[in-house]
Amino acid sequence: MKPAITVLGTGRMGSALVHALLKAGHHTTVWNRTVEKTTPLVAAGATVARSVRAAVEASEIIIVNVTDYPATTALLRGDIAPALRGKLIVELTSGTPHSAREAGTWAVEHGVTYLDGAIMATPDFIGTEHGTILVSGARQAFDEGKDMFQALGGNVQHVGEDLGLANALDSALLALMWGALFGALQSMAVCRAENIDFSELARQWTATAPVVEGLVSDLIKRTAAGRLAADSETLSSISPHYSAFQHLVELMEVRKIDRTVVDGYDAIFRRAIAAGHLHDDFAALSQFTGKAG
Amino acid sequence: MKPAITVLGTGRMGSALVHALLKAGHHTTVWNRTVEKTTPLVAAGATVARSVRAAVEASEIIIVNVTDYPATTALLRGDIAPALRGKLIVELTSGTPHSAREAGTWAVEHGVTYLDGAIMATPDFIGTEHGTILVSGARQAFDEGKDMFQALGGNVQHVGEDLGLANALDSALLALMWGALFGALQSMAVCRAENIDFSELARQWTATAPVVEGLVSDLIKRTAAGRLAADSETLSSISPHYSAFQHLVELMEVRKIDRTVVDGYDAIFRRAIAAGHLHDDFAALSQFTGKAG
Repeated sequence: MKPAITVLGTGRMGSALVHALLKAGHHTTVWNRTVEKTTPLVAAGATVARSVRAAVEASEIIIVNVTDYPATTALLRGDIAPALRGKLIVELTSGTPHSAREAGTWAVEHGVTYLDGAIMATPDFIGTEHGTILVSGARQAFDEGKDMFQALGGNVQHVGEDLGLANALDSALLALMWGALFGALQSMAVCRAENIDFSELARQWTATAPVVEGLVSDLIKRTAAGRLAADSETLSSISPHYSAFQHLVELMEVRKIDRTVVDGYDAIFRRAIAAGHLHDDFAALSQFTGKAG
Repeated sequence: MKPAITVLGTGRMGSALVHALLKAGHHTTVWNRTVEKTTPLVAAGATVARSVRAAVEASEIIIVNVTDYPATTALLRGDIAPALRGKLIVELTSGTPHSAREAGTWAVEHGVTYLDGAIMATPDFIGTEHGTILVSGARQAFDEGKDMFQALGGNVQHVGEDLGLANALDSALLALMWGALFGALQSMAVCRAENIDFSELARQWTATAPVVEGLVSDLIKRTAAGRLAADSETLSSISPHYSAFQHLVELMEVRKIDRTVVDGYDAIFRRAIAAGHLHDDFAALSQFTGKAG
């Protein structure tokens, strides 16, 4: 008999979680602030709870996927807390490492088992083999919930005992993703100013993407190994990067394109060059992303 | 009989060009400011010229790959100019669209045929099927030089008659690449602050890279098509991006990580949201990369 699960929050992502659980044969109870959103789920076999308390009392495992951590706090930390004692909360709401750790402290104080996850997928991937969810917290609790996690996605990974890890890794990967996406926005601004057709850019990007993927991997690996000086395997040192970067800056200046993002790159280049790293590997920049203030 | 070629500038990239030309059977004359750098090329079969004038006089096609456009100007625009009349200059030095167009104007005034190219490869790819060079300028001149271009790389493309196009497209693609690379630097700063092993980041990046490639392609295509409002094919709207982005910013603030680059993203997010695009597709941000001042 598979364990009963409660899902609090049935927006697009929460609903995808519920469908995956139902499909895997879990008795699933749902609650949502706007009850209308649960209607399609009830039609699919879920049980709707009239209150958060009733939802919490219905299962031993409570998955939370609401707007943010303060929303979770508002739902669970009042007089509901005693009803959670001995149960497992799996928090899948997006947030910071700090919020996750803080929730973990609260959980310990109230006799609740707590895992914190980050969903690295759009809702259409939930329940499929490519559904990736990172989970942090006690390994034993993760192992006990394995059956349920496997229903949610084929790629659910325990990333460590520190409750903040899943959210931290989520933010780290998003930082990389936004880098590429905002880079693409800069790129399109250049194309627009220089009358380059976006279809030409798309075509070149398709050809270039594997190179970029390799450069990023190389950057991470060299930084991890501390191989910051240029050597025979260096793909490119800071010097030619910075020369070519000047041309981008000059083009943007001539075309009056906003340089806020590239000025951020420039600050990092300049710090590294001022510290004598002009002829070192691009990875040397990793030492100059800088502590603030 | 293949045409004789002169290569001005034999740094790492210039030397790779010379080796590819020699391999394809072109009689190749070389000149470099520091003559010692030509020694391995002479050993491989190149002829070294004692002066720029002698180098220019030796061939009908002159490839230039020096530090920057001012260096080219210093070499070719003095009393050497008459010796260039009727010849083809292929400028492969990295520069701006403006510099390329300006050089084209000079070339017309001096009876010189001029093509401007951008090498989208590291030297090890030159002469291989994956060697990509973008070339702009008169189509006829490009076609006449086709034999030589094929020796330099399997993927040499004529991108348009406007001489600035190759450099512009180069800068646009580099803007995208730096986006990913500086995103990776931000990502590593987050991992360092949160004690996430770089090998874990590298592993997750390998899994995520195809997703990022797809998101960038989707972003370019939707922007090209003007599909900025969210629709049934929207992968994610600005709203969940901006929520998750707040968590990254909060993490960086708590860990005192320099936010110069992400503040640039924030400015674009805020402009779009202020203009009422919170629930539109991420592609709506393309309208807010902004003209400067």
